[in-house]
Amino acid sequence: MAPLHTDRAFEQHLGTVRASILEMGGLVEDQIALAMRALVERDVALARTVVDRDHTVNRFDVEIDALCLKALALHQPAARDLRLVTTALKITTDLERIGDLAVQVAERAIELAETPPVKPYIDLPRMAERARDMVHRSLDAFVREDAELALAVCAADDEIDKLHEQLFRELLSFMVEKPDTITRAMRLLFVSKSLERVGDHATNIAEMVIFMVKGRDIRHLDAVPRDL
Amino acid sequence: MAPLHTDRAFEQHLGTVRASILEMGGLVEDQIALAMRALVERDVALARTVVDRDHTVNRFDVEIDALCLKALALHQPAARDLRLVTTALKITTDLERIGDLAVQVAERAIELAETPPVKPYIDLPRMAERARDMVHRSLDAFVREDAELALAVCAADDEIDKLHEQLFRELLSFMVEKPDTITRAMRLLFVSKSLERVGDHATNIAEMVIFMVKGRDIRHLDAVPRDL
Repeated sequence: MAPLHTDRAFEQHLGTVRASILEMGGLVEDQIALAMRALVERDVALARTVVDRDHTVNRFDVEIDALCLKALALHQPAARDLRLVTTALKITTDLERIGDLAVQVAERAIELAETPPVKPYIDLPRMAERARDMVHRSLDAFVREDAELALAVCAADDEIDKLHEQLFRELLSFMVEKPDTITRAMRLLFVSKSLERVGDHATNIAEMVIFMVKGRDIRHLDAVPRDL
Repeated sequence: MAPLHTDRAFEQHLGTVRASILEMGGLVEDQIALAMRALVERDVALARTVVDRDHTVNRFDVEIDALCLKALALHQPAARDLRLVTTALKITTDLERIGDLAVQVAERAIELAETPPVKPYIDLPRMAERARDMVHRSLDAFVREDAELALAVCAADDEIDKLHEQLFRELLSFMVEKPDTITRAMRLLFVSKSLERVGDHATNIAEMVIFMVKGRDIRHLDAVPRDL
């Protein structure tokens, strides 16, 4: 029913939404990597840069929301197109919160730079790398509308959860054995928890992408349907 | 342009969305209260009920999303009506995550029931009560489209953050003085953190309500505009 030029205008609009989401995603991936580098290299200045750059992440959140509302108001999309826009609306919220989690890691990096490390940083950088990768692939899945890739992201979350549990137990025994490490170990635990939550947000994004593509909500199913 | 009966149908549709959000909100408020009671009364069966009921919370999330998509597709609302539906879409995500946080409190309650309490439960029930109240008022603000009430919710978040920091310091000194309390104190800290995050989600909801009503995004402004 809509004239062809409207479809083309909508496609252009969608292209802008996709590009902005990828740009925002690139920025928060970067924030995670920099926050982790600041922690490992005890680089307080770098950690402060991460904290300051959160404004840019937040600006993206507001701008992409406005773009999506405009897309809905101007083009009144239906079915899959509609789901694409509402998914983008929800994805920005997750990306903004991933940005907040990177800031939390950077804040712990600032505190931890004051005291000698409890143990060498091996597991946390690995977790950060996995979490970043999940965010990257979940957004790839969004722009390519690739449900298979999104499913792979959901599956990867288990691994991060396990790394977190393992680190939790390890740090707990540190604390019990050497009570003078308690404050530092707690801060590391918070870092681990933040990274685990980044993985959760990436999983949320991936689940929404599956819904967007398949038009079926797999969130909160105990088992993924076999025909997916 | 739309005939009157469409407006009326849209109003009915919106009424259903509002009622469902309030119902889902009531359920998650209840989940927080029950999880806290399970913790204080060391009631493992009650804690398990909270964990089991999370399915119902999740079903609401899926159903309200479907309702909102239908509202967008069928009625193609504009301006404030459009913002109302997209806000509802985002609110369900926050409510679903508040439900997850109640489950996390319940899980800690199950673990903590096995060991004697570190200290009497005074601060945590108070935090839970405040957090619940924030959720309640943020949803009230949504259905009444009341930006002033939403602003009051944002202001209340500071108090919960302070309670959390205070408890954090207190539990940290417990752990340092009596290393045998470490595991229990850590679990209490996680409960405190979960409640603090409930407050954050209520604040997110309140900020979105202000945007919905005012059509201006106050999220991520360092200061709330004076003419708000």
